[in-house]
Amino acid sequence: MANLVAPQPGPEGFPRAVALPPDKLEAAHRELVERFGPGRVLTDFRDRMAYAYDATGEKYPPDAVVFPLSTEDVADAVRIAARHGLPVIARGGGTNISGGTIPVTGGLCLAMNRMDRILAIDTENHTATVQPGLRNLALQEALRPHGFFFAPDPSSHRVSTVGGNAGENAGGPHCLKYGVTVNHVLGLTVVLADGEVVRLGGPEQDRPGYDLVSLLVGSEGTLGVITELVVRILPLPPVVRTLLAIFDDLEVAMQTVSDIIAARVVPATMELLDRGTIEVVERYARAGYPEDAEAVLLIEVDGPEESVADELARVEAVCRRNGVRELRVAKTEAEREALWLGRRAAYGAAGRLSAHVWTQDVTVPRDRLVEMLRTVQAIGRKYGIRLINVAHAGDGNLHPLVAYDPQDADEIRRMKAADQEILAACVALGGSISGEHGIGIDKLPNLELQLGPDLLGLMWSVRQAFDPALRLNPGKAVAAPRRNV
Amino acid sequence: MANLVAPQPGPEGFPRAVALPPDKLEAAHRELVERFGPGRVLTDFRDRMAYAYDATGEKYPPDAVVFPLSTEDVADAVRIAARHGLPVIARGGGTNISGGTIPVTGGLCLAMNRMDRILAIDTENHTATVQPGLRNLALQEALRPHGFFFAPDPSSHRVSTVGGNAGENAGGPHCLKYGVTVNHVLGLTVVLADGEVVRLGGPEQDRPGYDLVSLLVGSEGTLGVITELVVRILPLPPVVRTLLAIFDDLEVAMQTVSDIIAARVVPATMELLDRGTIEVVERYARAGYPEDAEAVLLIEVDGPEESVADELARVEAVCRRNGVRELRVAKTEAEREALWLGRRAAYGAAGRLSAHVWTQDVTVPRDRLVEMLRTVQAIGRKYGIRLINVAHAGDGNLHPLVAYDPQDADEIRRMKAADQEILAACVALGGSISGEHGIGIDKLPNLELQLGPDLLGLMWSVRQAFDPALRLNPGKAVAAPRRNV
Repeated sequence: MANLVAPQPGPEGFPRAVALPPDKLEAAHRELVERFGPGRVLTDFRDRMAYAYDATGEKYPPDAVVFPLSTEDVADAVRIAARHGLPVIARGGGTNISGGTIPVTGGLCLAMNRMDRILAIDTENHTATVQPGLRNLALQEALRPHGFFFAPDPSSHRVSTVGGNAGENAGGPHCLKYGVTVNHVLGLTVVLADGEVVRLGGPEQDRPGYDLVSLLVGSEGTLGVITELVVRILPLPPVVRTLLAIFDDLEVAMQTVSDIIAARVVPATMELLDRGTIEVVERYARAGYPEDAEAVLLIEVDGPEESVADELARVEAVCRRNGVRELRVAKTEAEREALWLGRRAAYGAAGRLSAHVWTQDVTVPRDRLVEMLRTVQAIGRKYGIRLINVAHAGDGNLHPLVAYDPQDADEIRRMKAADQEILAACVALGGSISGEHGIGIDKLPNLELQLGPDLLGLMWSVRQAFDPALRLNPGKAVAAPRRNV
Repeated sequence: MANLVAPQPGPEGFPRAVALPPDKLEAAHRELVERFGPGRVLTDFRDRMAYAYDATGEKYPPDAVVFPLSTEDVADAVRIAARHGLPVIARGGGTNISGGTIPVTGGLCLAMNRMDRILAIDTENHTATVQPGLRNLALQEALRPHGFFFAPDPSSHRVSTVGGNAGENAGGPHCLKYGVTVNHVLGLTVVLADGEVVRLGGPEQDRPGYDLVSLLVGSEGTLGVITELVVRILPLPPVVRTLLAIFDDLEVAMQTVSDIIAARVVPATMELLDRGTIEVVERYARAGYPEDAEAVLLIEVDGPEESVADELARVEAVCRRNGVRELRVAKTEAEREALWLGRRAAYGAAGRLSAHVWTQDVTVPRDRLVEMLRTVQAIGRKYGIRLINVAHAGDGNLHPLVAYDPQDADEIRRMKAADQEILAACVALGGSISGEHGIGIDKLPNLELQLGPDLLGLMWSVRQAFDPALRLNPGKAVAAPRRNV
């Protein structure tokens, strides 16, 4: 729970944040302004505060903000930061909810938003080459006239950037069928901790030597700063059909998810909303979901017309065999949008319940999802917290949304206890404490619970190999194992 | 060209192979026999020679061979090797053709073939858990009754193992549609250089912390020894249709490959054979390919019946529009096998041309494949070597097959020169000097040509992070950059 966990950079092997003495900070600012001009450097405290937080909630201002326009800019900024002993934090849309872009130890924030160009769209080889600050939705909009799309579709796609999607290895509803971001990044240009520029991978499937592309994706800027990406693009499916299946029983809804996959259909999405979510969504967004349903599944199938018709028929047959209360198939794009409204409104509707919403992100094997969901509901009741659940059910990826009042110390205490129980239950079910939102500062204290000290130590040694001085995004992604400190 | 390049472990940062003095070797053998029993240790020179080579041709005997049955066996063997200063080389089927399993510095060979069990087939979650010594074909045969398959299908699938496929990040004809091995490995159990056991990844899509699974896949046993794999399994496509397209013009054949992909069809395979290959194949295997054709494409589409029919029609339309000479669509499984016969016979038929065959493995962007193929043909003529070409055309992955006489020093010299020109041409076209056969000892001297010293240095530091003493499969996969030595 990021907004509750104070970052503790010391114990994990990072130099504790020490503000630079004013004269040294002044010298760093001066060198940055000399190199980039005053228009591309922020040094004023109030300006820097705008880069102190992301969607997670914590606030730690950077010592300076630079807006690079090119790989060379980034390399120079990294070198200047090194000379002045400043950590380096690359930042895209700042939409992540694990604290991956919060400058917990201060440092130089590289605001990548102006590096937002599409350098090439290669429909022949099914790739696009883009700068990291390009927004996910802007890429989708540029690809659509060519008949292509970029598969990762995090809910933040209007704001989040392709570089940020790669940094956090973002998912989204469609990753059930298409996989997460790492499956769609083919090549990277990266500025390393010492300012060296390397190109990793490329349009080919095979990567000679070690697969550093996959290592960089999801590393939250701790191994290098991504300055260019070659991503896989996919032909838009000719046909998309969307269906809402309404169930009187949560177990039956989840069994239906499994039965659909057992029937050899891999829908593009299978989103599940539990009763609490339906009630809240209906109260605030009026999507037309029946408030007394125990669960709804939002299922989308896509592909060529013939196979979509066949798959939709098989999905409907499985739902009926399992005793679905009602099936609604969208006949128009407007109807499709209406069906999605409830799912999309969940986060906002939860926000109406209290001042803040905390989104947890856990994944369990698909056949344990009901158990996990029941456990989360029970934990919520036990601690008396307001908790609703949405899930990328096909992936076993559950997002409990917790509405809370940050002024209520007792509620915070109960939330923290509930959160820790949720993570422990997830690990006990063979799950992963991070589904698609990354580790950041939020999951870092629990990473050893997930990985154990040996594996964490191995990751730590990889980090040290890339960044011996530990200046790239300190306090995120991977920590030193406690037993070795 | 592995059988021509003498391994030079010294300059790349590895301890040069020094045979253990007889008394020390004796002590190592004694400890291995004590732990594993005489039936699971080979120490006799003639026995060890059977593990001195792989399909590449070089021969360097290991100091001992052990047959582990479990992760614990591997961990103990690795610890014993460490105590006696022996390198460790894990070996599966020994089918690789880049020298990845040749003990060039001696050491302890871990023959993984007896770790060949299927531990679980989970049709619910679409995963299988297997030991690394399981043969690829044995896995396919076990999956078929469940209606599933494992996508990587290297030509060596009858002999090569799943662990070896992962170690080399193997491809195969079907990786056009399904991706290479790294896309199908979800979790690994790995014994590290010091004998520690770690579990990486698992059935979930997201991997908290760094993605070490993808890093291990393709690392040729240099970062750890894989002792268990969780792999993705896919539902068998209900329908497979196979088509042979015969062309009078190589450029037209390759344009057809691009046009098919531009027509939004992603066939399961698009294999190309050039005229030289067709002639050789017909002379020795009589697959019924017309000997005067300039190229044939072997195209397979798979999926649900409705979409396959549609895709096949679109493939045929593109071929006709491009002026294909003849289309042959298999109507029965026997006809399908007959069409594949020519492709499968290429390597064997090339073997009839001379005593040995060397297979090169280069990948270029798909739209440069014709250029690459013409260049290779011209290089072959320039040096007067016998060279035929098969390609996974959809991937831009080209396999020049060179038939040669290992006794003919002049031919060897010309081959070496031709090979170096082929690799340089590949890099110049923006390609990769290894498509799917790995780096091993064969490509190691040219890896810096591909990656440059900075990137190679980065990979080297990752290797050192995993294995500071450089005892895991020395002389393979990644070398120290020369400029740093």
